[in-house]
Amino acid sequence: MRLKFTKMHGLGNDFMVIDLVTQHYKMDEDTVRQLADRNFGIGFDQMLIVEPPTSPDVDFTYRIYNADGSEVEQCGNGARCFARFVKDKRLTAKNEIKVSTSSGKITLHLQSNREVTVDMGEPVLEPKAIPFEADQFASEYDFEANDQQLTLGAVSMGNPHGVLVVDSVKTAPVESLGPIIESHPRFPQRVNVGFMEIVSRNEINLRVYERGAGETLACGTGACAAVVSGQLRDLLDPGVKVNLPGGSLFIEWAGKGHHVNMTGPATRVFEGQIYL
Amino acid sequence: MRLKFTKMHGLGNDFMVIDLVTQHYKMDEDTVRQLADRNFGIGFDQMLIVEPPTSPDVDFTYRIYNADGSEVEQCGNGARCFARFVKDKRLTAKNEIKVSTSSGKITLHLQSNREVTVDMGEPVLEPKAIPFEADQFASEYDFEANDQQLTLGAVSMGNPHGVLVVDSVKTAPVESLGPIIESHPRFPQRVNVGFMEIVSRNEINLRVYERGAGETLACGTGACAAVVSGQLRDLLDPGVKVNLPGGSLFIEWAGKGHHVNMTGPATRVFEGQIYL
Repeated sequence: MRLKFTKMHGLGNDFMVIDLVTQHYKMDEDTVRQLADRNFGIGFDQMLIVEPPTSPDVDFTYRIYNADGSEVEQCGNGARCFARFVKDKRLTAKNEIKVSTSSGKITLHLQSNREVTVDMGEPVLEPKAIPFEADQFASEYDFEANDQQLTLGAVSMGNPHGVLVVDSVKTAPVESLGPIIESHPRFPQRVNVGFMEIVSRNEINLRVYERGAGETLACGTGACAAVVSGQLRDLLDPGVKVNLPGGSLFIEWAGKGHHVNMTGPATRVFEGQIYL
Repeated sequence: MRLKFTKMHGLGNDFMVIDLVTQHYKMDEDTVRQLADRNFGIGFDQMLIVEPPTSPDVDFTYRIYNADGSEVEQCGNGARCFARFVKDKRLTAKNEIKVSTSSGKITLHLQSNREVTVDMGEPVLEPKAIPFEADQFASEYDFEANDQQLTLGAVSMGNPHGVLVVDSVKTAPVESLGPIIESHPRFPQRVNVGFMEIVSRNEINLRVYERGAGETLACGTGACAAVVSGQLRDLLDPGVKVNLPGGSLFIEWAGKGHHVNMTGPATRVFEGQIYL
């Protein structure tokens, strides 16, 4: 059968997006893996699937598959593309879109400039819950890695992040220090490592070494964790522009007890049709 | 404007194919590079462009761009996809298609099983013309690399190839010996290195370390060079199935003074539309 799809990206994190509201197809792991291949298939970091709602309080069900065929929890870059897609395909007329994912319900806001705001939830700061080995919460922690004494912020945005302040992202030791901190025994479930350069109280440059993936173009949860950590250390104000290698995000956090909002672009690359 | 394209592959060597006979667009280097990006664009090894013929003795002009935007000479895997494309898009009704490329005219033959045969030209065996440093032509040469005494065939198919016979492609030292032979002083323009396992007089397994690219899924000229070298060494008959990591090709050579014919598949992956 013929399946229509749209290829999109959010700051270079790329997605095959499929409307399974008006089209009917049963996706399986093998097909996802074949389509994810960048030479033999379409190629993508994740496949995003729009399905009809399973409960009356949401507009859509949102399924996300990794390139290896496994179903995964939400990704900020993908959520922005999802919202842009359902609006551009006229699957909804709303600008506030409620979706259910395997990890719970989320609300996506379409902005008038075509950017999308995603509620990324409340940051987790309690060391045990991150998980990070420390006696009690602190805005930053002394940390030893590679025989260096470092100072590090620790935040979970659903996944654990360690955040270092550096003089310049250009010269930051992402490739050398990233994997050492990622696998440090004080992070028992390993950790994503952010290298943050403070430009002003409202702007940072950021590179992120992602757990299991190495450096990536644009880690949405990493941007949130860096801004939370920078505010806790009194280096940043509540609204911060985050410049990543793939482009920029705007992160807002009103402080402890509040959710983090992430706003950024969602870009359509092309429309496709494949025969399966 | 809206540009239609087809994504295809020949044994995993992948192509964006564009009909600029019925569509009108002026392709430039910057656009090729943007479209070649696998995250921000469509992603491909090469872009193949079908243009109207510039002389009455050919059916089409065939332009090939590398992912870096440079225009290149022909590639066997791309030529098969080109032939399949012009036939499937009904740009021709012929099964023998003559095209002009930047490196001369070639003829492509569509087979009844949807495979395509490409005339790859006459192999060059004269050492100076390969170029390879040796006193005179031999079916194989003593060769020292990495303190090992090796025996190697040397053939040019428009690009230089060194061919080693190995017991098994699975255990062949492609990653260790490939780069050493590639840059050996006896090959002044460097060399592609083939590791050939003889299965029978009509079948080989082959892995190729490509000059400047490392190991690839399916090197068409490497398959031709291996079969020529194997026939010169009296290990193979004139028609040989070549099993590469990306799939199989059938190579025919009737001996010195004859052209090499390569037959293999061309696979459509999807149809696309992009707004430029």
